[in-house]
Amino acid sequence: MNYELSPIGTIHTPYRKYAPYQPVETEKEDFFVEVKEEYAEGLKALEKFRYIYLLFYMDRQKKPVSMTVEPPWADGLEVGLFASRSPVRPNPIGLSIVQLLRIEGNRLYTSGLDALDGTPLLDIKPYIRELDSKDNANYGWLDDLEDREHLMLHIRGIPHE
Amino acid sequence: MNYELSPIGTIHTPYRKYAPYQPVETEKEDFFVEVKEEYAEGLKALEKFRYIYLLFYMDRQKKPVSMTVEPPWADGLEVGLFASRSPVRPNPIGLSIVQLLRIEGNRLYTSGLDALDGTPLLDIKPYIRELDSKDNANYGWLDDLEDREHLMLHIRGIPHE
Repeated sequence: MNYELSPIGTIHTPYRKYAPYQPVETEKEDFFVEVKEEYAEGLKALEKFRYIYLLFYMDRQKKPVSMTVEPPWADGLEVGLFASRSPVRPNPIGLSIVQLLRIEGNRLYTSGLDALDGTPLLDIKPYIRELDSKDNANYGWLDDLEDREHLMLHIRGIPHE
Repeated sequence: MNYELSPIGTIHTPYRKYAPYQPVETEKEDFFVEVKEEYAEGLKALEKFRYIYLLFYMDRQKKPVSMTVEPPWADGLEVGLFASRSPVRPNPIGLSIVQLLRIEGNRLYTSGLDALDGTPLLDIKPYIRELDSKDNANYGWLDDLEDREHLMLHIRGIPHE
């Protein structure tokens, strides 16, 4: 049984061929989401949220899916695909939490996100602190790495020496 | 342009016809996810994470999609669909953050989640504290309600008087 999805809009970013793992939060206007006209009414009251989820379809992902991955900068460690945020997945649905900077009509300006320009948008959901922010969450296998903090800089797309 | 998804497994819950908005976190064995055999290897090292995201396809959602909704217990307030967590969406992709209690083979026992029994699972992603927990997130339009705390009990599926 398969299921069909149809984009509700398009994600715009400066990234044409490669998107950083997870990007730096930025206040620039480089990142915006355009929702199709017929869905614009669905944005009502969304501007009250500081953070939102964007779900998108990673349509340019053509690599073969492997059940294990070696995360970059993790010193050869092999983990399961579902223990990773690799974009090469059986169902290539991307999930990013972004800051919502402002809404102009059917256009949402956001903080940085790791999607290629033109990526089809599938859904927007509000990020609600009490539901979604888990301050006792951990770092999983990242905690076992000697240099977790360095790896996190890469994962978050933060430039460093 | 449409996109096709194929389930990677199935979600099991005690809910047959109605799933609470967002459920109580529980230590019971009522909630588990079964991943298809061919994807079991992709679970390697996932057990190190305290929380995971489950993405699923809300296949029994047949109501017509409306761009505005009146959230229950919100005193008649009307908000845009994308400012709500309503399951009736153009692309009915459900997103739940659950505690991962343990993994046995291709079965993951989790805390409670708001999906009907038999719901097709689309993806599992690790919830990584530094990426996903936003302690400065807010409550959006919920902050304007006189009785936000009461509404949050409903949203989280917590029984109360």
